[in-house]
Amino acid sequence: MKIVIDAMGGDHAPENVVAGAVDAVHTYRVPMALVGIAQRVEAELKRYKYPKGFIEIIHAPEVVAMDDHAIASIRQKKNSSITVGIGLLKKDGYDAFISAGNTGAVVAASTVVLGMIPGVDRPGIGCVIPTLKKFSFMIDVGANTAAKPEHLLQYAKMAKVYARLVLEVPRPSVGLLNIGAEEGKGTELEKEAHKILEEREPDFIGNIEANEIFTGKAHCVVCDGYVGNVALKISEGLMESVAILMKREIKKNPVAILGALLLKSSLSEARKSIDYSEYGGAPLLGVDGLVLISHGRSSPKAIKNAIRAAIREVEHDILGKIKEEAVK
Amino acid sequence: MKIVIDAMGGDHAPENVVAGAVDAVHTYRVPMALVGIAQRVEAELKRYKYPKGFIEIIHAPEVVAMDDHAIASIRQKKNSSITVGIGLLKKDGYDAFISAGNTGAVVAASTVVLGMIPGVDRPGIGCVIPTLKKFSFMIDVGANTAAKPEHLLQYAKMAKVYARLVLEVPRPSVGLLNIGAEEGKGTELEKEAHKILEEREPDFIGNIEANEIFTGKAHCVVCDGYVGNVALKISEGLMESVAILMKREIKKNPVAILGALLLKSSLSEARKSIDYSEYGGAPLLGVDGLVLISHGRSSPKAIKNAIRAAIREVEHDILGKIKEEAVK
Repeated sequence: MKIVIDAMGGDHAPENVVAGAVDAVHTYRVPMALVGIAQRVEAELKRYKYPKGFIEIIHAPEVVAMDDHAIASIRQKKNSSITVGIGLLKKDGYDAFISAGNTGAVVAASTVVLGMIPGVDRPGIGCVIPTLKKFSFMIDVGANTAAKPEHLLQYAKMAKVYARLVLEVPRPSVGLLNIGAEEGKGTELEKEAHKILEEREPDFIGNIEANEIFTGKAHCVVCDGYVGNVALKISEGLMESVAILMKREIKKNPVAILGALLLKSSLSEARKSIDYSEYGGAPLLGVDGLVLISHGRSSPKAIKNAIRAAIREVEHDILGKIKEEAVK
Repeated sequence: MKIVIDAMGGDHAPENVVAGAVDAVHTYRVPMALVGIAQRVEAELKRYKYPKGFIEIIHAPEVVAMDDHAIASIRQKKNSSITVGIGLLKKDGYDAFISAGNTGAVVAASTVVLGMIPGVDRPGIGCVIPTLKKFSFMIDVGANTAAKPEHLLQYAKMAKVYARLVLEVPRPSVGLLNIGAEEGKGTELEKEAHKILEEREPDFIGNIEANEIFTGKAHCVVCDGYVGNVALKISEGLMESVAILMKREIKKNPVAILGALLLKSSLSEARKSIDYSEYGGAPLLGVDGLVLISHGRSSPKAIKNAIRAAIREVEHDILGKIKEEAVK
């Protein structure tokens, strides 16, 4: 097994990426290929000790910026770390690609370079969501902002494989994100998707409302990429703002400061279970290769956890299983 | 001034509605009309003392259930508390209508009975959002799930009036909810809306991403009702789940329990600033009358605060100002 990593991807690349990769090599003892401007990656790598032969550097002279136009960046920068890295998945011995870079570019390059799995029309980004029960899996959180009803069915099939193998749910249920519990709610997309899911997805449990996502009502939640992306980002923004707000209030009151100190370990446990960096990479499902997308602001820990997620996907042969089962 | 209240609306009606109305009469000394099944409302009212002549009961024999189909309920239940209550706004002396009942039915009845303001094509539900700065105003959070670009421009114009008069922002900025900062992001709706807003809305500051809503980057945030509803509900669900999660962790550890006790007042201050019931009613803008929608789970406090919001809207003549200014 070898994990390919976009060394130039993310707001703090290559520093955070290299730091996370080195840490992962120590912990998981899995070989990695770091793709990027060799000189810069090398300079960064020199700062660490790691077991010999575990890290290979692959030169890619171009870098896709975080705000580059997705499609244009693929056409114009054929030698970017994203395109070169994804290309490696076509070779023997390279098993998964991780990038914290421009999400649109990763989606576009994956689609073009790897192609789609037969029976899947559009890629979807999945996301593991911590819930009051355990975990749910939501797809799509941003790859496809013009989803058609049948795409949501395809997402459901793939999500079930992921939930079964990675989240260890024996028989995952599927919910359709919607603005009401009843059939006939939502836009044309949800109305049609509801029909198709009811007909063709035996584990479909109906609509679920956004406030039910975190209760774990459905193991798999399917939605359009635009809505899913808004849902994910607003959750992130809300958690950050609430943390700031609480700190502000606590600072006003010495008794509260003491209280916060006593609470610290419990809060950090609670925080851990809702911290994106604990889960690392979000799988891009539907393309013919294992691709994981990490948050642009990924810390070294988030990169390390994305690598852990990638190893798990390879070990479970998620791609093979999705090809076998999802597309019927 | 008289505030009309749907006594039968919400999961705990008429109990919570009557309790909130009585409390509001004591505090604000504004007369109210409670619309609903007279016998039930009367029975509930008997449990309280309140200044004479401040509460009028208006009989409406039918009740729209929370899960009734919106349009059908309006056609079939012409004497529901919603339709009768909204009808009162056409009479002199009745100034605003509040319901915690079936949102779709309130939107449909308001549109049919009151009609639209000239120049506004679709109603939008606005929502006051607590932010790190102060407050923002988001519209639409659920009235119109098939928004067109020009609807978002109309929402922007109305939102600015609301933000100026009620939130006291001298010159409110307008942001378009989108999944990226750059122009050209999003679905066809956002792409087109971006163009129209740039051309015709002088206070437009561009796209804002969902994680920026709570930072207060824009005073007014416009979006399609489907996306806005998901955003609102997921925030609500997340806050509830995080609270449950924190309690679980705290209970595991006696030191943390002490910490939580010391923190209590600070946390409840922070909580207050993000608690929907503090803000009460969400204005339904665009229809030719002041209509406020309260949460289905409204507590008596939430009803009272919705009444406070309604009084404020009447005092500021929000409806008149929107007619004057927004639609140019």
